[in-house]
Amino acid sequence: MIGTQIHQLATELWPICRSITGNGVRKTLNIIGEHLPNLKIHEVPTGTPCFDWTVPQEWNINDAYIIDPKGRKIVDFNISNLHVVGYSTPINLKLSLNELKEHLHTLPEQPDAIPYITSYYSRYWGFCLTQKQFDQLEDGEYHVVIDSELKNGHLTYAELIIEGKSKQEVFLSTYVCHPSLANNELSGPTVTTYLAKWLQQQPELRYSYRIVFIPETIGSLTYLSRHEHTLKKHVFAGFNITCIGDDRGYSYLPSRAENTLSDIVAQHVLQHLAPDYKTYPFIESGSDERRYCAPGIDLPIASIMRTKYNQYPEYHTSLDDLSLVTPSGLQGGYEALQRSLEVIERNEVLQLTVKCEPQLGKRGLYPNLSTKASNQLVSNMMNFIIYCDGKLSTLEIAQKIQVPIWDLYEIIDNLKGEGLIVVAN
Amino acid sequence: MIGTQIHQLATELWPICRSITGNGVRKTLNIIGEHLPNLKIHEVPTGTPCFDWTVPQEWNINDAYIIDPKGRKIVDFNISNLHVVGYSTPINLKLSLNELKEHLHTLPEQPDAIPYITSYYSRYWGFCLTQKQFDQLEDGEYHVVIDSELKNGHLTYAELIIEGKSKQEVFLSTYVCHPSLANNELSGPTVTTYLAKWLQQQPELRYSYRIVFIPETIGSLTYLSRHEHTLKKHVFAGFNITCIGDDRGYSYLPSRAENTLSDIVAQHVLQHLAPDYKTYPFIESGSDERRYCAPGIDLPIASIMRTKYNQYPEYHTSLDDLSLVTPSGLQGGYEALQRSLEVIERNEVLQLTVKCEPQLGKRGLYPNLSTKASNQLVSNMMNFIIYCDGKLSTLEIAQKIQVPIWDLYEIIDNLKGEGLIVVAN
Amino acid sequence: MIGTQIHQLATELWPICRSITGNGVRKTLNIIGEHLPNLKIHEVPTGTPCFDWTVPQEWNINDAYIIDPKGRKIVDFNISNLHVVGYSTPINLKLSLNELKEHLHTLPEQPDAIPYITSYYSRYWGFCLTQKQFDQLEDGEYHVVIDSELKNGHLTYAELIIEGKSKQEVFLSTYVCHPSLANNELSGPTVTTYLAKWLQQQPELRYSYRIVFIPETIGSLTYLSRHEHTLKKHVFAGFNITCIGDDRGYSYLPSRAENTLSDIVAQHVLQHLAPDYKTYPFIESGSDERRYCAPGIDLPIASIMRTKYNQYPEYHTSLDDLSLVTPSGLQGGYEALQRSLEVIERNEVLQLTVKCEPQLGKRGLYPNLSTKASNQLVSNMMNFIIYCDGKLSTLEIAQKIQVPIWDLYEIIDNLKGEGLIVVAN
Repeated sequence: MIGTQIHQLATELWPICRSITGNGVRKTLNIIGEHLPNLKIHEVPTGTPCFDWTVPQEWNINDAYIIDPKGRKIVDFNISNLHVVGYSTPINLKLSLNELKEHLHTLPEQPDAIPYITSYYSRYWGFCLTQKQFDQLEDGEYHVVIDSELKNGHLTYAELIIEGKSKQEVFLSTYVCHPSLANNELSGPTVTTYLAKWLQQQPELRYSYRIVFIPETIGSLTYLSRHEHTLKKHVFAGFNITCIGDDRGYSYLPSRAENTLSDIVAQHVLQHLAPDYKTYPFIESGSDERRYCAPGIDLPIASIMRTKYNQYPEYHTSLDDLSLVTPSGLQGGYEALQRSLEVIERNEVLQLTVKCEPQLGKRGLYPNLSTKASNQLVSNMMNFIIYCDGKLSTLEIAQKIQVPIWDLYEIIDNLKGEGLIVVAN
Repeated sequence: MIGTQIHQLATELWPICRSITGNGVRKTLNIIGEHLPNLKIHEVPTGTPCFDWTVPQEWNINDAYIIDPKGRKIVDFNISNLHVVGYSTPINLKLSLNELKEHLHTLPEQPDAIPYITSYYSRYWGFCLTQKQFDQLEDGEYHVVIDSELKNGHLTYAELIIEGKSKQEVFLSTYVCHPSLANNELSGPTVTTYLAKWLQQQPELRYSYRIVFIPETIGSLTYLSRHEHTLKKHVFAGFNITCIGDDRGYSYLPSRAENTLSDIVAQHVLQHLAPDYKTYPFIESGSDERRYCAPGIDLPIASIMRTKYNQYPEYHTSLDDLSLVTPSGLQGGYEALQRSLEVIERNEVLQLTVKCEPQLGKRGLYPNLSTKASNQLVSNMMNFIIYCDGKLSTLEIAQKIQVPIWDLYEIIDNLKGEGLIVVAN
Repeated sequence: MIGTQIHQLATELWPICRSITGNGVRKTLNIIGEHLPNLKIHEVPTGTPCFDWTVPQEWNINDAYIIDPKGRKIVDFNISNLHVVGYSTPINLKLSLNELKEHLHTLPEQPDAIPYITSYYSRYWGFCLTQKQFDQLEDGEYHVVIDSELKNGHLTYAELIIEGKSKQEVFLSTYVCHPSLANNELSGPTVTTYLAKWLQQQPELRYSYRIVFIPETIGSLTYLSRHEHTLKKHVFAGFNITCIGDDRGYSYLPSRAENTLSDIVAQHVLQHLAPDYKTYPFIESGSDERRYCAPGIDLPIASIMRTKYNQYPEYHTSLDDLSLVTPSGLQGGYEALQRSLEVIERNEVLQLTVKCEPQLGKRGLYPNLSTKASNQLVSNMMNFIIYCDGKLSTLEIAQKIQVPIWDLYEIIDNLKGEGLIVVAN
């Protein structure tokens, strides 16, 4: 099962401490690159302007811990990289419990969870720990060490271009800036890796695919600022891939325009694969689709997710781990996206070559044996034909006749084989 | 009651063995022609191409029966013409029960019903009987006789053109290829006959009417292939008339485009005459509207029915008889269609001749006596006037102000009489 | 509270006997003019044509009463001006009870209420009284006196133009032809007076305002016939102000076009101020919006009301008095309209000056303290920005992001202050 392979890749990437810049991102992209030989890694220097933003300094960290008054190491980066606030400045300091508390973060309502906290754009240091750990802290002198470095360097991202027959592109974006967190976000880059592998295995692709693994927000701003013209010119569909690995329901978040091909495809696929999927309004968006769909950018990027960020209790805590994200969860997410890409590849405007109604009997297009399945096939074929007017796309016809488009693939192949339909011009 | 007259015509046509070609169709059209003197009967030779199809050989039958091992005539065409599979090749053969069974058709779940079965386009012979008859068959030698003939001849249909002031046409089509079956289908040709009579009695018609009595499928393909240009040029509304005689609910099946004048009229009429009428999606269509609405043909043909084909237990069995189809059932179907034609005749775009709001009082357009009925009339008149903007049609205004359009006819006549409204240009 | 002041003005205007012409209208407009110094009063002579109508004769009344057989004054204009049918011709007559009864009007189902009745366009005299009074009438000779006068004179109305930066106008119309009736209609002219005062107090107005106090029907016809061209050229929004003072729910009645700015604004305001407001279809309209929205006039005039005319038991009876119309009722109506005018003033199409997503942090646009309120503010700000595409208006964005537009005013002012948004061109 492909879900198992994706879960293994997530397990391999799990321990790496990623952030929006630094060696954790590089290590992650190198491992992904082992699966995708043509993946190109790009480095963008600190200070590079990206529209209204600037590439920040690069952050790296070796170690971090708190020694309690009794000399015990009570909070340890090596046990969980969530223990350190992301982008913490280096520190090596002895201080009282009260002073320390100003730099400690917990989740009182989830006493067993370490929160995930970052401070990218204002200098700060801090530790995250469980409320239970916090409650056991005793008065006395603490020793805090954060062996990190914040200096001019680079922002790192990776890009894979898979060329198809057309220069028109499908754009897939996922992010690699979260440390040891699973649904949000190792599910995105791992599922995307396997989607890219599947695309590369296809004998022929109608469209080209542009796939990026980037840090969230600043990464999409960087990528957009460098490829704005190309993206606007070529991209006609795409997905931001995030939160795609847990085993609960499915979610759809529209593009800002709400009615792009990506939106129609996502809804069609989910309607048939997971009819009780949840639809969020665009104003609930909070990931890179906000940049891709921003005014003046206007890319047709929608999201298919399992449980959406912000909508599950483990979100942005140490509980979002590889027991929450499962092989079957990843498999389901992968399939929804893979189906969507297939729909985009297969969607076309066809038209009948004969007038009115073709006589299917003389061409042997009626099955000899009449079964429930064959009756459905004939009914779908007749209904497909009656809407095959050179104006409606295959996807629109599937919607009209209320079947998943994949139930029409065989019919279309047969009718094409008989010369009864051709691509409309 | 006109329903009684229609039922009498159906009773007269009942015994005739119709098929898609042959003398049964001719006899039927001749009897209809007695009601419609201008009806023109057309003969199209076997082999004539009709788009992707070809006019088949003509089929006629004199007799058919099965003699059982004891010499009894157990299945007899003279008792029910449904006993023979339509288009059965001639046969005169002795054979065992097991051999015979391969040519016998029953409905196990409706043990008292003879099914209606045809095999127009692959050569075959067979008998239909009730499951009860079937269960009584004993072993032994059977003698089967089908005295039929299948040879080059003609496909027969009839056409009636009623000319109105405009060359724009309303198209009515019904089919005459079913043997002794009542709702589907003696109701269609008999109700259509009386609609044609009603149209011919009108002192003046705004539109022309093209009415055809044809065999289903191959008949509509034949007619379309011969009149494609004319139909596309002139037809702006129309109905396929079928299953219009039983006494249950009302049904509406849209044209493929779903929003033609025919659709709007049908829904308006049924909404007010039979508010709980049933709407089917176009993909449930299965009669000649599929040809009329086919891609590239695109005629605005919708269907108003009583109980739709395929949706009632007696459908295509000997139980679909003249007890199922009743005078009141036919009357109701006739009225829904007659109202629809009247709406088409009366629908027009009108505009006020005075600016803003006419003073109705000084013209005596307010009733002297204020009753509930007169209040409704005044309210309808005021509401009609406020929407009478030279853009909305009378039908659209009726929809806007939520009254049946026929409640506006008197108002319109009065306002026209006062010169307060004229046809918009 | 402004509602109290409005109620005081209504109390001052209450005793005046208004009709569609005459000194009652003049007195009313003079009192309103004390609040609105620039109010201009216009007199239009009897006989002036107004489209299909004509300005009628002017009607004035000094006194009216009925003396019963015992010499008691039992119905007295000085006690309630509703006792006389509006536009009653002068009379001084002795007559029997039976003869009298043909000129008496009551409401049998509301035995304590005097009905409000008029007969503008057919000559008549009559009295209105409670059913209880009626039931006590004894046989004998009655003496009826109506000291009225109906002669050539003028129709009187008032107009206030408040000039803003643009020549584009918001049109407010209310009517001053009802005698001592409160919700329908002293609420309209009194609330409108205070709206006009508020507008004149604004330091700057983007749009101009045209406010008229007119008699209903003939007044709007007169005004329209004199200003048709100007109104059509300049008016882009407006409201007919009526039934705006009782303390029950809120109502919205659309313009005939249903989707004008006035309609969108009214619905937006009521949705957030009074979510369970009632929407009426345009065919329930019965006031001057029928003239303003008439075919060929087509002004964008909608109505925001408290309880709509015709929809409350006290309507057009002596029970529609200043206990039904309350300070808080008037206050609520005033606020809904005042908010609506403010929305029209604030609604504009804005666009971002930076590409993609502005970095708000570096501009201090994130609040330092994260509270529930500040989180909502940031969320609204982010959502506002993402839709600020130079195409959607502020109002459309507020609808998209599901907040009242007034929650965006501060955000817009801040973003404008930072130069991040400008008016789109």
